Formats: sequence, C-alpha cells, structure tokens
Amino acid sequence: MKIDGKAYRTIWLAEDGWSVEIIDQTRLPHELVIVGLKSAEDAARAILSMQVRGAPLIGATAAYGLAMAIRADASDEAIDQAIAFLAKQRPTAINLRWALEEMRRAVQNLPRDQRVAAAYKRAAEICDEDVETCRMIGVHGLEVIKKIAAKKKPGEPVEVLTHCNAGWLACVDWGTATSPIYQAHDAGIPVHVWVDETRPRNQGAALTAYELGRHGVPHTIVVDNAGGHLMQHGKVDMVIVGTDRVAANGDVANKIGTYLKALAAKDNGIPFYVALPHSTIDWTVDDGMTIPIEERSGDEVLKMPGRLPDGSVVTVEIAAPGSAAGNPAFDVTPARLVTGFITERGVAPASREGLLSLYPERKD
Amino acid sequence: MKIDGKAYRTIWLAEDGWSVEIIDQTRLPHELVIVGLKSAEDAARAILSMQVRGAPLIGATAAYGLAMAIRADASDEAIDQAIAFLAKQRPTAINLRWALEEMRRAVQNLPRDQRVAAAYKRAAEICDEDVETCRMIGVHGLEVIKKIAAKKKPGEPVEVLTHCNAGWLACVDWGTATSPIYQAHDAGIPVHVWVDETRPRNQGAALTAYELGRHGVPHTIVVDNAGGHLMQHGKVDMVIVGTDRVAANGDVANKIGTYLKALAAKDNGIPFYVALPHSTIDWTVDDGMTIPIEERSGDEVLKMPGRLPDGSVVTVEIAAPGSAAGNPAFDVTPARLVTGFITERGVAPASREGLLSLYPERKD
Repeated sequence: MKIDGKAYRTIWLAEDGWSVEIIDQTRLPHELVIVGLKSAEDAARAILSMQVRGAPLIGATAAYGLAMAIRADASDEAIDQAIAFLAKQRPTAINLRWALEEMRRAVQNLPRDQRVAAAYKRAAEICDEDVETCRMIGVHGLEVIKKIAAKKKPGEPVEVLTHCNAGWLACVDWGTATSPIYQAHDAGIPVHVWVDETRPRNQGAALTAYELGRHGVPHTIVVDNAGGHLMQHGKVDMVIVGTDRVAANGDVANKIGTYLKALAAKDNGIPFYVALPHSTIDWTVDDGMTIPIEERSGDEVLKMPGRLPDGSVVTVEIAAPGSAAGNPAFDVTPARLVTGFITERGVAPASREGLLSLYPERKD
Repeated sequence: MKIDGKAYRTIWLAEDGWSVEIIDQTRLPHELVIVGLKSAEDAARAILSMQVRGAPLIGATAAYGLAMAIRADASDEAIDQAIAFLAKQRPTAINLRWALEEMRRAVQNLPRDQRVAAAYKRAAEICDEDVETCRMIGVHGLEVIKKIAAKKKPGEPVEVLTHCNAGWLACVDWGTATSPIYQAHDAGIPVHVWVDETRPRNQGAALTAYELGRHGVPHTIVVDNAGGHLMQHGKVDMVIVGTDRVAANGDVANKIGTYLKALAAKDNGIPFYVALPHSTIDWTVDDGMTIPIEERSGDEVLKMPGRLPDGSVVTVEIAAPGSAAGNPAFDVTPARLVTGFITERGVAPASREGLLSLYPERKD
C-alpha cells in the first residue's frame, strides 16, 4: 500500500540482491525508518524486537533470514541451526515455523551450490504468495462487507471494529483484517473503522491508524476498553481481526484483548470475523487453549514511547513507581464466539468442519 | 490511608478553617502535590480537570465547593446558581448531585447568617460519613474474600482483579472496591490484586497501583486487554469494581471497560462484585442503559503523561499523527453480569429486589 504516495511492501530485497530492507515498525507512527537486515541474526533481532511483527511478516522475515544464513553456510547442520534459532524468537505465531519449514523443503534435497538461489527464490515466493493471499482475503471479505452495506441507509458507513494491527504492515501488503476494508473503501463503499488502541504496544493507535490514515480510510482510535460500549449502542456493524494462530478446532489465538471483544460482539449479536491466510492454521493443535502464550516484558506496560512537542521521540514511565506488571501478549478466543473465518479461499464457520470445507485436502 | 507513613484523606479543611486542600490526582503517581481550593469555581475546576475524581470524592468536593459559595453569598439565588454550576461539571457520577442536594437541605430553611456554619458542618459530615460507609463496605466485602480464601490452599493468595480506581483516592478514605482488599490484607489474609491499567487516564496503573503499593498490598499491573486471558487461566478468583452510578434495576455505570471484564467473568464463572455506598444508587433511573455517558476529549487517548528518566513529567503524543479519537468515559454493565453488590449495609444480588433488601426504606 502507499505511504505519502509511494508504494511500499513491508519487506523487500535490497539493491545488493541478497540483503533485505524493512520498515522499522517500532519507530512508527513517529518516524518512517528503513532498516537493512544482513544476516539471520539481524532477522532474528528484527523479529524479537518487533521491528517486524504480524504473523505473515514474521514468516517472510524468517524466510529471508534463513536465506541469508544459507548464503553464509549452506550445510545441513547450519540450516538446522538457523531454523531452530529463528523459530524460537516468537512462540505464538505459527507462520514463523511454517515459513521456515517451507524454506527447508525448498533447499533440503539440493546440492549445496544450488541452495542459496533456491532459498532466495522461495523467500520471494513466500512474499508474493502472501500478497496474493491477502488480496484474496479482501476479495472474499468484501462480499461480507457488501452484505452489511446493503442493509444500511445510503451513504451510511459500515462500522468496522478491529483490534491490533492485522494490516498491510503485519503482512507483506494488503493485510488480512484490513484487506476487505481497503477493497471496500477502494470500491466506493463507505467504511469507518474503530481502531482499538491495543495496549500495551499500541499497534492499533500507532500502526493501524497510521496505515488507514495514509490510505485515506476514515477511522477513529478508541481505547481497548471502549469497544463493548460502542457495540451496546449500535455503533459497530462487524468486527474483523487477524490471528497469530488458529487451532484445528477453530479457536483463535490473537493479540491480547481479542477475546474480550469477541465476548462483547456475541453479547450484542454483532458478527465477529477472523481474517487469516491458510498458513496461520495449525492443524496439529486440536484445542486452542493449549497454544503457548508469550509473556513479554512488563516494561511494555510500564513505559510508553511517544512524541514530544518538538517531534523528538522519548520513552516515559506511566505507572506507579515500584509496581510490577504482567504482560501476556495473546489470548485465545474460543471458536464458539467467532462468526466466521475469512481466508484466501472464502468464508466458512469457525469450526473444524468449517476449516475443512475450505481446505478439504487436510481431511486425510 | 497512608502515604510514606503519613495518614491522609483525599480532601480536608485547610488551617484557615474555610478553604479546603486536596491531593492533585492528575499529578499522581509522579508527584504528590497538595492543592488549595478557595472557591466554588476552584472546586468545579478540580472536578472538571479530574484533580479530584471518583464518585464519592467528587461529591465531597462539590459539598465543600458549595460551602465556599455560601460563604461568599448565602442568598437562595446564589445557592441555586452554585448548585447548578457545580452539578454540571461531570454528568455521570450521581454522588455529585446527591451531595449538592444534601447540602441544599442542610441550609435551605435557615436564616442566612446560620447558613455558612451549617454548610461547613454538613460538608464535614458528608466526608466523615463517606469514611464510615467505605469502612463498612470493607467489613462486608471482607466476608466475601474470607469465603474465597477458605477454599484456597494455605498461604495461596486470593486473586482479585479490579478496574480503574475505586480506592481511597476515589473516596475520602478506605475506598469502595479496595476497602475489602485493605481489610483482608490488614487481617493477614494473603491477597494479590491484578490492577487493570484503565486507559485512557490510567487510573489503575497510576492511582490504584500507587495506593496499594504505598499500603503494601501485593499487586501486578496489567493492560485492560489482559483480564479475560487471566480469567481463562484460573488466575482470578473474584472481580471487585466501584461504580459511578447504579440504576434501580441493578445496572452499573462504571469506568469504560468494566462491561468487558464483567462479560469475561461471566464466561469463566468468576464472581463479579460491585462495591458502592448508598449514595451511588440512582433510584430515579429504572434502566441503566439510559444513564448519560460522558464523552471526554480525544486528547486523553492520543496523549499520555509520563516521567522522563530525569524525573520530569511530560506529555507525549502516542498515536498516528492526524488520527482522531473517540473517548466515552463510562459504560454500563447489565445487572445480569453482576454477582452482587457490596454496600455499607451488606451484600445483595444485583437487582431491584436485591437493592431493596438492603434499603427497604426505598420500597415506598
């Protein structure tokens, strides 16, 4: 999508043909900073520090990280080590391991001198496939939005609430939850987005609001506490969120607080959709409640970065001195609270049967 | 309660015998600043700017504000004007109008030369009554905590989650939601409190954590998004919150986000209690969903005060530049989600019948 009129992806091959460049998302929305990654270690650091975040983008970054590792040492042992090293940077997102296994498959039976080219080719494909996958999520999600728009008065916007950033900044382009929104907006369907701030890292206020604003989509930031009230008062027509991992039973791991919004949507009869690419489904997990939930540093809760009036960015302490903080990064929304999944193949109920209806090849 | 070993109330008569002093709560937790109020205008400003906040403390401040207005002009017209002026500063808290009507009753049939003394006397009584009311809320709430403690392993703390600040800083002393917690802690019952940050004004991270910490109660700050996850994983034994207004049908207006926690408690079978003094019940409102909800400035969402490493306090912008914010300050939790009310008279179900069982004099 575009920033100030210039088309970007979130990750791309640098001019040298082997290193990659990313948008440093820890600096957004305050500064647009491009960072070069020149090794698997750089890629791991970018993932761990959340310079890149969002399940699909984490996968894409890990893929290029592995390609750079193979460029340094194409032996089986080195590849195994690099995969293990990259995989451990974030425990919740399934795409990370999915992308690394895709990369392994792309190179494992090749002679060493062909592995570098094959790795870069597969990493590029993973990125391109993600773009196309996200575009198709938007195509199918657009139909859901159109149905809601048809019931509204002419000119009245479809009110969408989203949590965290499942936008193009979380993917390579388009986004998952935002793809239907962008496509509706581009098709001239009036849409207004309630953007959950998404504490503690404020990905909603910092990233989703940023990308929607730069694309020109009407939106309003609200604190995470506000969504239930908005739903009680008929100000939300639908919720769309992304996900870091969907279990085979339809349970959804996503940014902490998603579960609360799903409860409120259910309580108010508002459809709650989860947009995801196939790579986010973990067919090996039967019960979402067993998905490991990352516990991050309490400093993310106790401190906050922001702009001073002079434009400089500082980090301030916002809580009572001496108090500790807990910081679970994700929660699991039970499938019973999810109206449907929107994937690149279409829309289906949030259940094992629903997932299998979209991916019948998994029935074996 | 105590701060650094010194006992405080949140509002007290100054040494001059007619002006009052308060703790400026907009400066907490960063600085402990005492501010003098010398007129009804000062009191109104303190209420509007949230130097004082919390339903009982707003009422107490308005009472002293009116006493100062009567000291300046004890005519019926001036009293009417001052009451109207003070009442309009915050629309949601019922205590504000309750306290002002109490004050009116205390002075209205007196000759003018007796009104000043009567007003100060009634304002002092309102404060003292609030302290005793909060103490009794704690006495009754302690029994609820004791029952939960009895089911836990020896030494295992009772895990309480609270939202916003319904602590002594919201009252004159003790607090409402915190009073049972302080009394349990003081009685040697191990308690641990999950303190919701409570965006946008962070009253949990800034005030509840501050007062619990200064009193020595173990606690952990979490973002507002985390409570559902904690409940799913058995880490919360009970929720206690305060309220700004309870409707006669048991619906509860409280800080934005309370409704989401009540939904999560219900979904996980966790008791959800609301602690309140009688003055918070609005017997004139039959349906809580009709309680007016204050919409505050979006700047509270887009900006945040905090401490720099050098200890200075600054306000930083935290969201995408150019994005607007919505900021409803309260939501309404339907009575069906509330396990019980804890008042100065005891514990009762959250319903008209439950409220009338505690306040049978209202049956007429």
